[in-house]
Amino acid sequence: MTYEEIIKKHILTNNSQIVLIILDGLGDIPHPDFDKKTPLEYAATPNLDYLAKNSMLGRIHPILPGITPGSGPAHLAVFGYDPLQHQIGRGVLEALGLDIKLKPNDIAARSNFASMDTKGIITDRRAGRIKDDKADALCELISSVSEIDGVRIKIKPGKEHRFVTVFSSETKELGSLISDTDPLHDDLPIQKAAGNNESSQFLADIVNKFTERGMELLKNEHPANAFLMRGFSSKPRILSIRDKYKLEAAAIAAYPMYRGIASLLGFSILPSAESIEELFEVYRKNSNKYNYFYIHIKGTDKAGEDGDFSGKVKCIESVDRALPHLLSKLPDVLCITGDHSSPALMHSHSWHPVPVLIHGKYCGFDPTQRFTESDSITGGLGDFESKYLMGLLLANAGRLQKFGA
Amino acid sequence: MTYEEIIKKHILTNNSQIVLIILDGLGDIPHPDFDKKTPLEYAATPNLDYLAKNSMLGRIHPILPGITPGSGPAHLAVFGYDPLQHQIGRGVLEALGLDIKLKPNDIAARSNFASMDTKGIITDRRAGRIKDDKADALCELISSVSEIDGVRIKIKPGKEHRFVTVFSSETKELGSLISDTDPLHDDLPIQKAAGNNESSQFLADIVNKFTERGMELLKNEHPANAFLMRGFSSKPRILSIRDKYKLEAAAIAAYPMYRGIASLLGFSILPSAESIEELFEVYRKNSNKYNYFYIHIKGTDKAGEDGDFSGKVKCIESVDRALPHLLSKLPDVLCITGDHSSPALMHSHSWHPVPVLIHGKYCGFDPTQRFTESDSITGGLGDFESKYLMGLLLANAGRLQKFGA
Repeated sequence: MTYEEIIKKHILTNNSQIVLIILDGLGDIPHPDFDKKTPLEYAATPNLDYLAKNSMLGRIHPILPGITPGSGPAHLAVFGYDPLQHQIGRGVLEALGLDIKLKPNDIAARSNFASMDTKGIITDRRAGRIKDDKADALCELISSVSEIDGVRIKIKPGKEHRFVTVFSSETKELGSLISDTDPLHDDLPIQKAAGNNESSQFLADIVNKFTERGMELLKNEHPANAFLMRGFSSKPRILSIRDKYKLEAAAIAAYPMYRGIASLLGFSILPSAESIEELFEVYRKNSNKYNYFYIHIKGTDKAGEDGDFSGKVKCIESVDRALPHLLSKLPDVLCITGDHSSPALMHSHSWHPVPVLIHGKYCGFDPTQRFTESDSITGGLGDFESKYLMGLLLANAGRLQKFGA
Repeated sequence: MTYEEIIKKHILTNNSQIVLIILDGLGDIPHPDFDKKTPLEYAATPNLDYLAKNSMLGRIHPILPGITPGSGPAHLAVFGYDPLQHQIGRGVLEALGLDIKLKPNDIAARSNFASMDTKGIITDRRAGRIKDDKADALCELISSVSEIDGVRIKIKPGKEHRFVTVFSSETKELGSLISDTDPLHDDLPIQKAAGNNESSQFLADIVNKFTERGMELLKNEHPANAFLMRGFSSKPRILSIRDKYKLEAAAIAAYPMYRGIASLLGFSILPSAESIEELFEVYRKNSNKYNYFYIHIKGTDKAGEDGDFSGKVKCIESVDRALPHLLSKLPDVLCITGDHSSPALMHSHSWHPVPVLIHGKYCGFDPTQRFTESDSITGGLGDFESKYLMGLLLANAGRLQKFGA
């Protein structure tokens, strides 16, 4: 029996309410230019400190030691979906990030413009990171190929050289076991897509025709005279959070990708907001309607990826300032954590464990004084994999029966 | 997908360098006769202390809680080979310890002289631990049986009553699924070897004939008038560290067994040396040629197994004194740990977790002040199984891609 099966079998329902606040990319490592502190340690956080003194702290490992997760697996894990069992394809994730609604038979591919020499060799997989407006125009151009062999093709531009291609059909089954046309390294030719079964081969042929016809349209463009596709995937078959955990869940998130992931799991998507106060206000307004809230805050990850230590500190401090507003409608179980670490020093996601705080009537508390990386090392929750977080929150909410007699 | 499969799939290569220093049997427990300290706590280690303040500490569990490992599984684990999945047979391990080069069709057996009464009952499985020179002469004696049914038999003496027998053939397949002739307890008769499949039964018959003919030669000897064999095994089929982790790995180890294990995994074996300074000098001289170095120091384990607390302290202090020499050629990622614990109080290997230190640009650091058992409890790496160490080192070296998008 897997952990998820045990949990599912022992789920209870009651009137309790769980709020999970994800500060994206929250975890960090000490920065030599900032008193050898992490952003959480450097920030002034009186409200988080108060909460830490009255909560149990610990650390979550998004996947396993040393493994740096993308946003997809990191989020699946904190929602109680084993990230090694459930995977969201790259094409789907990119589509979610562009607010594209996928139907069950849609296949999405992560796509991007590239530069190709006269011999068909890719010289720059990113076409010099062409500007958004230029890329938008090129997307418009290849969008004229809107159907091949009865399969509809839709293009949606992303940032810079990136776009998403969605293939759909109401009559033919489309498979997603299709190899990338992207050679993944410069100085190699575009690859022919190949399918691993009949429905995938059917679509692979269309992908190759689309590549050919699209590139014919781009042949006089510079530097983006080619495009590459990878991560062909369809919406994963995955139990909704209602069916799995008997939760009526709502997502409050400003960024499309996080609304998209939540939507895949059957969360209700609440109206978004700009500031953290407003995000918390959305929760307050809707707090009677759901028993599980996921509130996503992007600023910490953005600053981390930009190497902007001070920006990360500022974002943490705004969360802290807004916190009393949320606490005035205190849920039965409040959890604050990140989906993964994004150390400012590294300008990227990382494998480092993330501080986690659980506050509730039965969470207990420990000698930790602040919600920081160093305090959380000695927190009473200890270290655990993110996939166990949901079980802990459900337990704290009185939503899990005893295992065995 | 197992952890090893995930890591393998996400390996990157770059110019980074990893150095792993194994102080064999390093971990210990407080000793009542030495201020209730462990050897690491008792030793004066200014250089390790400095490193600890600028590194992340934690503890590795060689296998799982309570399980005391032999050198084989303990080493496999720190090299990133799950010790429950990959096993090195006892015969092979003993052969490696005697610097015997095994070919793929060779079967090695751990062997030892014993005393037998007139009824064929083993009265002393160690033949009174006869001295090396006496045992060497007996090995010479039974070596006259050098071939049976076309299978060559080679004997190599070990310490005291121990030796290794290697069976080899260039024409017949030799199986290793053979039961021991060693009854494992005194007052029992020698067992007949039996094979579990055709090629193993073929060799089992030869093992029985060899036992008979060898004992005929020993019949007038005292106390060693018999010999026993166990742990029949051949070189395991195991991915090399190059194929698994894309590392060009080199081993610097004075003891044959550790060179042997490294050699099984495809490490280059560098010239050995006597003192710790010299071992580190071998690293310095070769540091441009490899990107993963394993440096093995035996003294800590030897002292631990001898119950020699002060000897263990002295070995740790010599490593500390030699450390600046190594640090003057600082690798991108430096890891110092042990393969397992060998508490002086216990005179043996043990299950206790082992302090581990990782130093590198992105390791972060924690409030720990010394590289000791008690400090490592609160280290930022936390507790983890040794099999995850390789993933952490690769991550710190920038050699792992992100998992998912």
